[in-house]
Amino acid sequence: MGKRASGSRVNWQKGIEILSNDSPPDFKIGICGLGTVGGGTLNLLRENADEIGMRLGRKITVSHVATRTPKPELTAGVATTSSDPFAVVADPEVQLVVETMGGYEPAFEVIRQSLANGKHVVTANKALIAERGNELFAVAQASNVCLAYESSVAGGIPIIKALREGLAANRINWLAGIINGTGNFILTEMTQKSRQFNDVLKQAQELGYAEADPTFDVEGIDAAHKLTIMASIAFGIPLQFDKTYTEGISQITPEDIDYADELGYRIKHLGIARLSEKGVEMRVHPTLLSKSRLLARVNGVGNAILVHGNAVGSTLYSGPGAGAGPTASSVVADIIDIARQAESGVKRPICPGLGYLQTHEGLEVLPISEIETEYYLRIPAVDKVGVMAKISNVLTAKDISIDAVIQKEPTSESVPIVILTHDVVERKLNEAIAALEELDEVTGKIMRIRVEPFHGVQN
Amino acid sequence: MGKRASGSRVNWQKGIEILSNDSPPDFKIGICGLGTVGGGTLNLLRENADEIGMRLGRKITVSHVATRTPKPELTAGVATTSSDPFAVVADPEVQLVVETMGGYEPAFEVIRQSLANGKHVVTANKALIAERGNELFAVAQASNVCLAYESSVAGGIPIIKALREGLAANRINWLAGIINGTGNFILTEMTQKSRQFNDVLKQAQELGYAEADPTFDVEGIDAAHKLTIMASIAFGIPLQFDKTYTEGISQITPEDIDYADELGYRIKHLGIARLSEKGVEMRVHPTLLSKSRLLARVNGVGNAILVHGNAVGSTLYSGPGAGAGPTASSVVADIIDIARQAESGVKRPICPGLGYLQTHEGLEVLPISEIETEYYLRIPAVDKVGVMAKISNVLTAKDISIDAVIQKEPTSESVPIVILTHDVVERKLNEAIAALEELDEVTGKIMRIRVEPFHGVQN
Repeated sequence: MGKRASGSRVNWQKGIEILSNDSPPDFKIGICGLGTVGGGTLNLLRENADEIGMRLGRKITVSHVATRTPKPELTAGVATTSSDPFAVVADPEVQLVVETMGGYEPAFEVIRQSLANGKHVVTANKALIAERGNELFAVAQASNVCLAYESSVAGGIPIIKALREGLAANRINWLAGIINGTGNFILTEMTQKSRQFNDVLKQAQELGYAEADPTFDVEGIDAAHKLTIMASIAFGIPLQFDKTYTEGISQITPEDIDYADELGYRIKHLGIARLSEKGVEMRVHPTLLSKSRLLARVNGVGNAILVHGNAVGSTLYSGPGAGAGPTASSVVADIIDIARQAESGVKRPICPGLGYLQTHEGLEVLPISEIETEYYLRIPAVDKVGVMAKISNVLTAKDISIDAVIQKEPTSESVPIVILTHDVVERKLNEAIAALEELDEVTGKIMRIRVEPFHGVQN
Repeated sequence: MGKRASGSRVNWQKGIEILSNDSPPDFKIGICGLGTVGGGTLNLLRENADEIGMRLGRKITVSHVATRTPKPELTAGVATTSSDPFAVVADPEVQLVVETMGGYEPAFEVIRQSLANGKHVVTANKALIAERGNELFAVAQASNVCLAYESSVAGGIPIIKALREGLAANRINWLAGIINGTGNFILTEMTQKSRQFNDVLKQAQELGYAEADPTFDVEGIDAAHKLTIMASIAFGIPLQFDKTYTEGISQITPEDIDYADELGYRIKHLGIARLSEKGVEMRVHPTLLSKSRLLARVNGVGNAILVHGNAVGSTLYSGPGAGAGPTASSVVADIIDIARQAESGVKRPICPGLGYLQTHEGLEVLPISEIETEYYLRIPAVDKVGVMAKISNVLTAKDISIDAVIQKEPTSESVPIVILTHDVVERKLNEAIAALEELDEVTGKIMRIRVEPFHGVQN
């Protein structure tokens, strides 16, 4: 990179000279929290200062950092360092506050006060945006400042910008994404190496991909936060985390992965938001999807989101969903966006925080029992003549039609019968499952996994 | 969509009322050219008017349309219709001109005059932007107006926005894309059905995927236009179409596709832009890439671009690269972007047209002979003992090391020897090919296809 680095330096110097007559003052920011994301942001602003300066025509200066633990090697050159984030909020020099503390408090209050004080805010805090974002965006709007959160969803993938701006001409019909890297790593390992969930989870914890308490990741809460945010900007509805259905991957067995494979599917932990005739669906759960889909091929800690708009059809966005570099990439992109706006003399943010100036207030979120999709059922049954007929009768009585069946050689007295259904309302399917479990021939709990056909998607 | 449509209508009415006190006047645009893209834009603005209005807080009105052929069913409700695009340029009502005529003239002059008159311009004209964009962006900058061109690259995929804004925190190291749907359709059919190039081309023409004169698509000129534009905004360099190396797919045979498959690769027509130690590479050519890559799985008329930034790592953007709906999606997204800016009171466009305020002027574009990559060689040779040794000696003498070899059973006296090399400078490889073709044992022209390893990319 020798040639470029020097070319860059020369030109940036030239740029400074060109701009020197009316060169805008540095854009001054503060950072609250120097963990992985905050530290990564500071490092990235330093490492790519020349390139960012050439794009922006001015420098971004970190003038104030708040960190609980002093990190002098990171904060070298930063004018002011505090242990109190509210010192950053109160600093009149600071035009933009980066909130990278995480958690609910004091992060919420840091953001709220910053916005109320007329400072822009960039945050990576998905839990806070998903659960308390409606209050915060109202404060931002009242103060005519930006609250930016690209890094809160899918790490380095600029999916918020794509939904809010790049696809703004569309009515978004649905989106579906692999939006938790830990869960995708676990399912990928289970699929590629026929390993058990608990075994891979332990490895993921050792590798640092999963927390000591893995609930947020494997039970889908983290994904539900991200899905809530995407659904809001896709459909123009308020953030409604409490209405997002969430189901984790801890019940998935290598056996299910094998049967799915045999039927032509992979099992992925998807977040799905859809606008149906009946309302909005927001749901996170294990999902069978055809092996031929690009989304099924996104492996390891990668994230990917497939979005369907009424004009564009389907587009896919894929990349790293976590990590210091990718997350900082999105945090700094937000800072550059805001600095570009400030420099252009806007009276108010270009784009509404959640993408819409008027929301679709009449749109209701559907309970999970009202969704309609295809299902995978694994039914443990006795190995007797007539079992399949009995099962079929129960399904037929509930108007559920069968798309495919696998009936295996019995391993003991029990034999798993695997069924793919056609579209059915979940409430009716649940009734059928209850009826099936009443049968003498059914020897245990039925495993049910939703199937996503992605009708009309090319790749 | 019943519930949503009515919800939307109610809310939009409410929105109008909310905004009625200081509601901004309609944003008025003109459209020059009512072909596929222009007509699609008009239709999309009409179809999604409610949704766009809710996002924007104001209406977009098409107040003037210029079309050679009157199309009354399309222009119903448009205040003024002309046959002369310069009437749109001169219309004082029009704030933004959509140029969807295509071609070089009068499109260039329509855009230039619009910008000079202080009107924003949105264009889908990749040839014009790639070949004469430098002049046009200078006019736009001098007039403090936007020249937007999202639809000129990869149809409905918001890749310009991703490069210019979403990844703005990064130094972009390289990008590689399937950016011509026709070519990808042809290679997909050849791969999946072992068909000959000419045979599939004919079908593509019948399906309307390929023009009667397919040169622009199959010889890579269309892809080179798009690559030129992406390279400029990725690296901060002027548009340099004349320095983009272009090689088509018409020489690819089903035989090469089969050998590549055997070695674990697919052949795709890629546009690659890379920043190396030596300078900038811009090249369009058939390329072997590992079957395990998502990019290798993008089939049919789909487009996809893989981008590598120094902070984020690699991200992929995939979707429809052409068609009325996808292209109009990007045209209208540009219109919304500009309307949002106009409404926010900017003194100048938020983002520089090509993403940088200062360009890297020292960066030179490398001639193709100076690139360094891996290669696939198919060498027609006589079936004699010692042939492979002779070929190896020639390669060794040029410091070219071999990664893999396939030697087939002879079909006649001639047997193809297929070789994958490790990294080598193309100039040296070409010398080796010339030397090999001098050998008595080599019976014909050697087929050479570049290989792209994408080191360090996860998916």
